[in-house]
Amino acid sequence: MNYLRNAWTVAAWARELEPGKLLARTLLDEPLVFFRDHEGHPQALHDCCPHRFAPLSMGRLCDGGAAVQCPYHGLRFDGSGACVHNPHGDGRIPVAAKVRRYPVVERFSAIWIWMGAEALADPARIPDFSFNDPEHYAVGTGTMVIDAPYDLEIDNILDLSHIEFMHPLFSSEAVRRGQVSFEHEVDTVWCKRFMAEDCEVPDFLRQAFQVPDGSIDRWLDVRWNAPAVMALWAGGVAHGREKEEGIVSQQAHCFTPVSPTQALYFYSFSVPRAIGPMAQAVADQNVQMLRGPFEHEDKPIVEAVARRMAGRDLLDLKPVLLPGDAAAVRARRLLQALIQKEATADGAHGSASA
Amino acid sequence: MNYLRNAWTVAAWARELEPGKLLARTLLDEPLVFFRDHEGHPQALHDCCPHRFAPLSMGRLCDGGAAVQCPYHGLRFDGSGACVHNPHGDGRIPVAAKVRRYPVVERFSAIWIWMGAEALADPARIPDFSFNDPEHYAVGTGTMVIDAPYDLEIDNILDLSHIEFMHPLFSSEAVRRGQVSFEHEVDTVWCKRFMAEDCEVPDFLRQAFQVPDGSIDRWLDVRWNAPAVMALWAGGVAHGREKEEGIVSQQAHCFTPVSPTQALYFYSFSVPRAIGPMAQAVADQNVQMLRGPFEHEDKPIVEAVARRMAGRDLLDLKPVLLPGDAAAVRARRLLQALIQKEATADGAHGSASA
Amino acid sequence: MNYLRNAWTVAAWARELEPGKLLARTLLDEPLVFFRDHEGHPQALHDCCPHRFAPLSMGRLCDGGAAVQCPYHGLRFDGSGACVHNPHGDGRIPVAAKVRRYPVVERFSAIWIWMGAEALADPARIPDFSFNDPEHYAVGTGTMVIDAPYDLEIDNILDLSHIEFMHPLFSSEAVRRGQVSFEHEVDTVWCKRFMAEDCEVPDFLRQAFQVPDGSIDRWLDVRWNAPAVMALWAGGVAHGREKEEGIVSQQAHCFTPVSPTQALYFYSFSVPRAIGPMAQAVADQNVQMLRGPFEHEDKPIVEAVARRMAGRDLLDLKPVLLPGDAAAVRARRLLQALIQKEATADGAHGSASA
Repeated sequence: MNYLRNAWTVAAWARELEPGKLLARTLLDEPLVFFRDHEGHPQALHDCCPHRFAPLSMGRLCDGGAAVQCPYHGLRFDGSGACVHNPHGDGRIPVAAKVRRYPVVERFSAIWIWMGAEALADPARIPDFSFNDPEHYAVGTGTMVIDAPYDLEIDNILDLSHIEFMHPLFSSEAVRRGQVSFEHEVDTVWCKRFMAEDCEVPDFLRQAFQVPDGSIDRWLDVRWNAPAVMALWAGGVAHGREKEEGIVSQQAHCFTPVSPTQALYFYSFSVPRAIGPMAQAVADQNVQMLRGPFEHEDKPIVEAVARRMAGRDLLDLKPVLLPGDAAAVRARRLLQALIQKEATADGAHGSASA
Repeated sequence: MNYLRNAWTVAAWARELEPGKLLARTLLDEPLVFFRDHEGHPQALHDCCPHRFAPLSMGRLCDGGAAVQCPYHGLRFDGSGACVHNPHGDGRIPVAAKVRRYPVVERFSAIWIWMGAEALADPARIPDFSFNDPEHYAVGTGTMVIDAPYDLEIDNILDLSHIEFMHPLFSSEAVRRGQVSFEHEVDTVWCKRFMAEDCEVPDFLRQAFQVPDGSIDRWLDVRWNAPAVMALWAGGVAHGREKEEGIVSQQAHCFTPVSPTQALYFYSFSVPRAIGPMAQAVADQNVQMLRGPFEHEDKPIVEAVARRMAGRDLLDLKPVLLPGDAAAVRARRLLQALIQKEATADGAHGSASA
Repeated sequence: MNYLRNAWTVAAWARELEPGKLLARTLLDEPLVFFRDHEGHPQALHDCCPHRFAPLSMGRLCDGGAAVQCPYHGLRFDGSGACVHNPHGDGRIPVAAKVRRYPVVERFSAIWIWMGAEALADPARIPDFSFNDPEHYAVGTGTMVIDAPYDLEIDNILDLSHIEFMHPLFSSEAVRRGQVSFEHEVDTVWCKRFMAEDCEVPDFLRQAFQVPDGSIDRWLDVRWNAPAVMALWAGGVAHGREKEEGIVSQQAHCFTPVSPTQALYFYSFSVPRAIGPMAQAVADQNVQMLRGPFEHEDKPIVEAVARRMAGRDLLDLKPVLLPGDAAAVRARRLLQALIQKEATADGAHGSASA
């Protein structure tokens, strides 16, 4: 599998990276170690000592985060990947004693990583998830391992017509009957689904939208950014009122490949801090409620699809496509084009491995 | 591994296929879903929706068995493999929305499947297991997964001289001292073993044959049909009496490959309903008693042999053959010839996969 | 991976090979069965019956050890690999009914095996481990499975500068500050580490060396013999006294490859029987104490290194080498030269497999 490297992707939720601890995580086939340095800034290094190839993540953080010590022979590396301490012999630091570091940025409650050419790593290119800005929102987060290629998860979120069948408790027929439109540009696809006058909306949604009776106008808007960074706005309002008066739940659905056959699923549910001191509890409770169907309904089916596909490309298998696949097919083609473009550009890869 | 496709093989015992339920089973490397339709007839489809490749077996049976609904986006397929319902958009059914169906027949308490060219699927070619006809016999059945190529199980049943060594509680030296003869034709091999005047027969066999004392004439007759459909008649009678006066236990030992390294083992023990209302209990008890040695003695050794052989062909490994191997080697050669013939015939394969 | 075959390596500790029992163990990718014959001598056969390839180790020992009976059809083989009994038909033994036997010698509390050309198997070439001679020493032994190539374990023992980092409870800074020298010849490397005037020695070492206060002169001498047969002398004496007056613990650290990615680790701690009747208890207690760090500190890190290296050769990966690597790199090169030499010599291999 070729990955898109020159793009920001989620490596962890910010709260997964605890001060004083090392976090080991393999992304895009590369083992990485994450930590917060002495100033609290996230850092990411290739998780492999250049001496004897021990994982640095099995070592320990020194000097309040200023360096990571290798568990095997004690070499120490700082957040730039430079060896800053050799405890052996005369203490001279070998010239080659360096590990690759990766640009990481903490933003929107997440740790974003750039696995491509460092010179291109502009934080301004991180897609907007202001609804996860911890200053204004309480953010409930979850992380799950999916044994499937990450692109199957893009398909899953971009075609929500599956909700009725996969999550029977969470939907009504309205979703698949909704009006769907989509827009796209270079590395972004929007898929918007509008369900006018839904009368059979499940009770928990009525409650969420605060429309105790009567029909509801609902919408499900999904934004995809390459490689697999997605936002979902699920809104509802009493039929006839303006969308702006409605209530919208804001979720992130971001996927980062671990390997060609495995991905990490980062999802969140955010609640404005303005609602008061219980905002975090509400966010956590909502994300917890989402985990059930994600883990017990989406995950097994997406993984089963992956087993059936056995590593083959979706379009090569000539699927019977339905109208609802349009946005996902568009995202797939944009992503393939970006990967293709990157592969043909000189030096774009910048992949390190040992 | 090349499989013999134009042959009937056991997919399940009839009672494993419960009305209203979907049964997922991989045979000959192909994932299949089995169900009983609204008339109770068994059906088998490729277990893979042509839209997004989700296993249909993770979905649900609709309309009393008339169709299977895909768990992902709700397409429905009937027993012929035709898509009969598309819940999306204008409901039009895409021309390519079909799944392969496989001929299946319920007979002799089993569900038989034909994985080759459908035009050749003549139920008259199902080998005779009338002793498992549920009208006249109570049939105890068992199913086991064996992590070994199915042909090693053919060898195991066709050379019962192993009983004394592998199943010390179940045999006497008489078995390996018995007179062995074999006969064969195109796709059938008979191996008949006669043990005259056995005096050291274990008690449980004396009881079974109702010969409390004195020597017993015993026989073990095995019939193999391609690919691995076998019947075993184990009989005994007081020495000097006619075989026809004896008591015979009738067993099926049928093997269907799941993959080159795994097989399903379908075994049964049948009892004439004529013996009275406890016939089913007796059959179930007997098949339960057989499971012990099958699971704890045959299975580990056959699987260990498979590990030693590591996917290589028996005869390529130049085994030291003993006279008792004659029938098994004959069956192996007939099977190879049938597979070879099928592989060279045009369009014989008819394999489907996605 | 190419293995060194014409060399003695440890197959088991002597006490692992219990009279009357069969011991199955795969070494150098070859499945072997070990047993003590009727005279108590260790024997090793290819663990695979030449008839139907069942593991002999699943059978049983007959006639007090004179032969092993195959579990499947009862052929029997003696310690020379000859078939000595065929229970079938006229009992004639097929000419080809032989299994490969391997030279084995019981010495220094271990069972040594020679996996190369039998004609070259001279027991005089077994490296000297007289400190494990059961006549004069009580020997505590342990065996562990390591999921890493065996050569990574050579590196681990030949560079003990890791002790301070990997085993923080077992060391002081003195170890890495010690003076290191090494010597080598054809198939032997010595790495000697001397730590003069160590004042920060952990209490348990003070006790072991019987120097309750004051500084201690300590040493760690390691001898490697190809392929991975190692001895460790860990000594200490009050500073200023002669080495000969000190106390030395004597350990074996021998590694035998199971496969390219797995090794067996045989370690021991010996105590002179001269210390009295509690010698065995002391030896067992010490080896038990060693197991903790071996299992919970060395093993996970060496295995993690193996995962990072993913089967690639250490030097091909261009590691940043430190001065402490000199002995291990030397052993690695001697070993490679011996394997290379063996591979180019005619008939040196003598590998058997089925």
